[in-house]
Amino acid sequence: MKKIILIVIGLVSFSCFSQSNNLNLMPWPQEIVFGNSNYTIEPNFTIAVNQETNKRIDNATTKFLKRLSGRTGVFIEQGFAYKNSEIENPSLEINFKRIGKLKLNEDESYQLKVSKDKISINASTDIGVIYALETLLQLVTNNESAYFFPEIIINDAPRFPWRGLMMDVARHYQPLDVIKRNLDAMASVKLNVFHWHLTDDQGFRVEINSRPKLHQLGSDGQYYTHDQIKEVVQYASDLGIRVVPEFDIPGHATSWLVAYPEIASKDTIYEIERYSGIFNPTLDPTNDETYEILNDVITEISPLFPDNYFHIGGDENEGKHWDENKKIQAFKIQHGIKNNHELQAYFNIRVQKILEDNGKTMMGWDEIFQPGLPKDVVIHSWRGTEAMLKAAKLGYKTVLSKGYYIDLLESVRLHYTNEPFTDNHGLTDEELKNILGGEATMWSELVTPITIDSRIWPRTAAIAERLWSNKAINDVDNMFKRLEVISSRLEELGITHIRNRDVILRNISNHQNIEALIKLTKVYEPLKIYTRNKGGKKYKTYSPFTLFADACTADASDAIIFNNLTKKYLSGKDANSKKELISILNKWVENDVLFTQLKINPILKNIAPLSKNLAEISQSLISILISEKIKTSQYKILKNQYLEIKKPLADVEFASLNSFKLIIEYYSQKNNLQIDLNNSSIQQ
Amino acid sequence: MKKIILIVIGLVSFSCFSQSNNLNLMPWPQEIVFGNSNYTIEPNFTIAVNQETNKRIDNATTKFLKRLSGRTGVFIEQGFAYKNSEIENPSLEINFKRIGKLKLNEDESYQLKVSKDKISINASTDIGVIYALETLLQLVTNNESAYFFPEIIINDAPRFPWRGLMMDVARHYQPLDVIKRNLDAMASVKLNVFHWHLTDDQGFRVEINSRPKLHQLGSDGQYYTHDQIKEVVQYASDLGIRVVPEFDIPGHATSWLVAYPEIASKDTIYEIERYSGIFNPTLDPTNDETYEILNDVITEISPLFPDNYFHIGGDENEGKHWDENKKIQAFKIQHGIKNNHELQAYFNIRVQKILEDNGKTMMGWDEIFQPGLPKDVVIHSWRGTEAMLKAAKLGYKTVLSKGYYIDLLESVRLHYTNEPFTDNHGLTDEELKNILGGEATMWSELVTPITIDSRIWPRTAAIAERLWSNKAINDVDNMFKRLEVISSRLEELGITHIRNRDVILRNISNHQNIEALIKLTKVYEPLKIYTRNKGGKKYKTYSPFTLFADACTADASDAIIFNNLTKKYLSGKDANSKKELISILNKWVENDVLFTQLKINPILKNIAPLSKNLAEISQSLISILISEKIKTSQYKILKNQYLEIKKPLADVEFASLNSFKLIIEYYSQKNNLQIDLNNSSIQQ
Repeated sequence: MKKIILIVIGLVSFSCFSQSNNLNLMPWPQEIVFGNSNYTIEPNFTIAVNQETNKRIDNATTKFLKRLSGRTGVFIEQGFAYKNSEIENPSLEINFKRIGKLKLNEDESYQLKVSKDKISINASTDIGVIYALETLLQLVTNNESAYFFPEIIINDAPRFPWRGLMMDVARHYQPLDVIKRNLDAMASVKLNVFHWHLTDDQGFRVEINSRPKLHQLGSDGQYYTHDQIKEVVQYASDLGIRVVPEFDIPGHATSWLVAYPEIASKDTIYEIERYSGIFNPTLDPTNDETYEILNDVITEISPLFPDNYFHIGGDENEGKHWDENKKIQAFKIQHGIKNNHELQAYFNIRVQKILEDNGKTMMGWDEIFQPGLPKDVVIHSWRGTEAMLKAAKLGYKTVLSKGYYIDLLESVRLHYTNEPFTDNHGLTDEELKNILGGEATMWSELVTPITIDSRIWPRTAAIAERLWSNKAINDVDNMFKRLEVISSRLEELGITHIRNRDVILRNISNHQNIEALIKLTKVYEPLKIYTRNKGGKKYKTYSPFTLFADACTADASDAIIFNNLTKKYLSGKDANSKKELISILNKWVENDVLFTQLKINPILKNIAPLSKNLAEISQSLISILISEKIKTSQYKILKNQYLEIKKPLADVEFASLNSFKLIIEYYSQKNNLQIDLNNSSIQQ
Repeated sequence: MKKIILIVIGLVSFSCFSQSNNLNLMPWPQEIVFGNSNYTIEPNFTIAVNQETNKRIDNATTKFLKRLSGRTGVFIEQGFAYKNSEIENPSLEINFKRIGKLKLNEDESYQLKVSKDKISINASTDIGVIYALETLLQLVTNNESAYFFPEIIINDAPRFPWRGLMMDVARHYQPLDVIKRNLDAMASVKLNVFHWHLTDDQGFRVEINSRPKLHQLGSDGQYYTHDQIKEVVQYASDLGIRVVPEFDIPGHATSWLVAYPEIASKDTIYEIERYSGIFNPTLDPTNDETYEILNDVITEISPLFPDNYFHIGGDENEGKHWDENKKIQAFKIQHGIKNNHELQAYFNIRVQKILEDNGKTMMGWDEIFQPGLPKDVVIHSWRGTEAMLKAAKLGYKTVLSKGYYIDLLESVRLHYTNEPFTDNHGLTDEELKNILGGEATMWSELVTPITIDSRIWPRTAAIAERLWSNKAINDVDNMFKRLEVISSRLEELGITHIRNRDVILRNISNHQNIEALIKLTKVYEPLKIYTRNKGGKKYKTYSPFTLFADACTADASDAIIFNNLTKKYLSGKDANSKKELISILNKWVENDVLFTQLKINPILKNIAPLSKNLAEISQSLISILISEKIKTSQYKILKNQYLEIKKPLADVEFASLNSFKLIIEYYSQKNNLQIDLNNSSIQQ
């Protein structure tokens, strides 16, 4: 490595680095030194490990060789790692000091060196080795005749110790293969906490032998057995991932009350909830039996989850059934409990005691926070950063999810720029350490095993970078460029976000040519935030999630291209971007020709306007861009077309709407036309 | 149902029936009466069951509603079946008499009636109900405005009681999700036996607590726990599918001997086999410890598999290590055992005794057959039908797999026309009953979880029809037409045969546009029989199966179209088929233009000739078809082109080769040219 370019983030700016290489690493490492040579991947590639191999390293090296061989087509002769003593001059030498513990602040650092004839990984723990192997796989490059690793030295370690993905398996049960492939994907972007949201109004997903009615009556038969939980925890452990279970109480508890109405705050018959939203069924915090059942559940479940932390949810309890219950009201008076917040605090403290008896540290959403809690309780912030900062100030550990709600289907740009250390946080350096990291949250009201991957990925990879990499790594365009490649690597790991789009489109088209539909998924995005299922009453848990909106994703790719071009064109008016805009608009016009060749069925009939509306307004925009003017005669038609494509339809929205608006406004201004696109009246 | 057309197979010919409807049922039912009306699928669709629901019916009805809703997009309000007493006038009324037993010759019949305002299913057992629900889902039809079931009466029952799929999980381990989705697919085409090939030279895939070295040393950590086996058996049971385990002995046993070399026939060190083929490691039939271990294994495993039958393999033991072992030779002399076949018979009888003690009936491949065996032993025929007929004649039950070897990647036509009752079988009607049915065999030397589905499906659906439907249902063209639709329904069930093609193509193209590659998969087929891995030494178990050949399948669709057109053209010379042939050839020429736009990597470089060769010979054929002659000057070039495209490359072969040959021969004959395409010498 003779000529090296030293790039240390913080010393040399990111934009400089981004010009100096075309690597698609994510999360971006802390420190990189580039070389000029390559290590070519040949069939005689071998790995040697410096220790008696353990399961984690066995797994990681075997999978590494398989993925390397699968991607490059190189028939690697040796499918498993050697011990150092068994082989001389291995291609890749792995050295680590000890087996990493799955606990907060474990050493996850590694050093990776690639030279022309040798690769080495050095790490304190086997967990560091796993991360180094993932980085190495991201480095695979090729020319026409070979695959190789570029010469490089990487020194890397995470910025935050808590980098999580929460998966809600209560609203929609997710089988083990879904969880396993997502754990693989998590490890590939160095996430280290799987937060498993196991119970909610819509389902109780864990076998509880001491209280079997819970899973028997609360799950529609869709729950994890003890052995399956052990399997998941072991699988995660092999990847260096901690598993934090969540049992959401005292609200979000309908499924508990189906089994045990006697511990409900209201005397009624409970059925598993089929809708989405905030519901009133709540555990009775004044009933000792409540704590007996909780004690049974926690005591039975705790050994299955070796992690220190146990999440009790605690969110969105509005206390309606508490207010309606005279016994509970009397209890409050008797105990001097002034309001429902204090009553929940009373509940939390009793639950915390049970957790403590089982060696667990309590964690919960924002709502559980109150100054009287033991100082080791972790506050999980979802509503805003205010509570998080307040808690951190008071010495409580916190984890951020506000801004990482991937179920809302917002742009990755938003999540990527959601910096945990907000401006004006007002915390000392020591207090900042209380912010442990963050978690992407995959609430599953509107996802099934078919679609969940496309809601998690690839956006969660960008969140992983936010939590791992230096704060200065924040160039959105560069992130988008790398994310596209990372997205394809996720497919290699079994993530179905790309392939299942086509599965859905084939379904809705009765297996006709789906080209026109694919094109539409690149400009339409699912309705965001909670608009798709406003009021929670459109979709039941068993409604079809096999429709056009389910094939669409955030960050519709052609729309992004169009939006970038529009920005470029309107700022510079260069002829080239105009030409490109027209070319895209033409494709949207042509796409409707393709669409209309499809044999129509009721589902296609429903989405046909998406294609037609787009074609019509695109045609208008082409003529405007070519003539560089809006004729007065066009005005009414254009506004109509704009208002049509603005309407959400079939649970999707047009993702270049604002660009269309900008183009129209630009030319109307230029032509001195008064077009008010915000006014939905079509009258001229 | 006023105007009905009575179609009873056997009375009315198949060709008549096939003209009279466009239903895509598979396997085709025994008896169909068509009506003229429809039952429209609306959100208020409900199911009622006449009994306290059992798990099998709960599962089947819940999944039915989900699939119906998912496919049609109809938001069905009720996601679960009612009991009869809970609802009046359900859309679908299900009546059955008893819970079916998972045993040979259980009643699997059903009657399904659809009228304008009511659907009913009647069956003796819940298994019959499951089949009726699958038939009903195959009936879903649509026009532009609605989805509906056509009015119909179906009376149905299987022709053979044993309709199986064997899956080899030893050569390549298959995780539970692969097995479960394939069980779903099996049920959808009314297959009822999952034959689970659990051990072989390349892996011992079952946890054996009494002899833990077996799974610890023999599986690379890839084995099924007892709980996972129970999970699979339960999952299969819920679908009406029996599970028959196979432990292949005394040959194919390397993985046993890795753990217990002391029961090997040769004193050596054993390692898990990484190649494919027939290997010599064999259990020692003269060693009592062999039977002790077998007794431990069988005794521990038998309760996990409630089925009566237990498959001991028994195939391909060539006895080399027996011949080399002096102790075994002495044993043979001492016991008057004349040859290795008799020695294996001695072994089988001792194993049979262990099975009998565990309440199991023995089953094994051809080689185990000898007249001295107990009469309940089942002979599984794989080498030819001769042994099967001989065994059946002698009163032994037999199952046919010869002709159903789907791993060989031959055309579905071959499997579909593989009638178990061969011509000149020489059996009485009573003896014919000994032929229980058949099994498709998925040997897994060359498949992984990514590709296994595309090797099993859709061809196995045609085998399922052979085993279920009337012998007279054998119109190959009609089968092809229906199979295309059934194939899409298999995707709905989670089968990955369609989606994973694109996953592989994206992988080999570095996620470029895969259109050109898709086109190539429609004309190239993986090398058949054992030619891809001749000698078993090209591929190891961990070699890449993520390459172009793995994206290709039997029955390449565009090649089939071209071949049919060629036949039509050469028999009739009609201008229209000529035009169509030229149009296809033109697309193959154009496809190479698309291919050459790809950024080349080593994998694409390797397959580039597939595209180029096809384009070049297509161009020549276009000019021949247009001019209707082969010019003498073209001859050498054409023959060269033919010989080029004839060569297997990248493990695939061109699937319209014979059509090309026929066209060239036709015109060379017509032009009085002497072209010998079989002679690979290019000299003119």
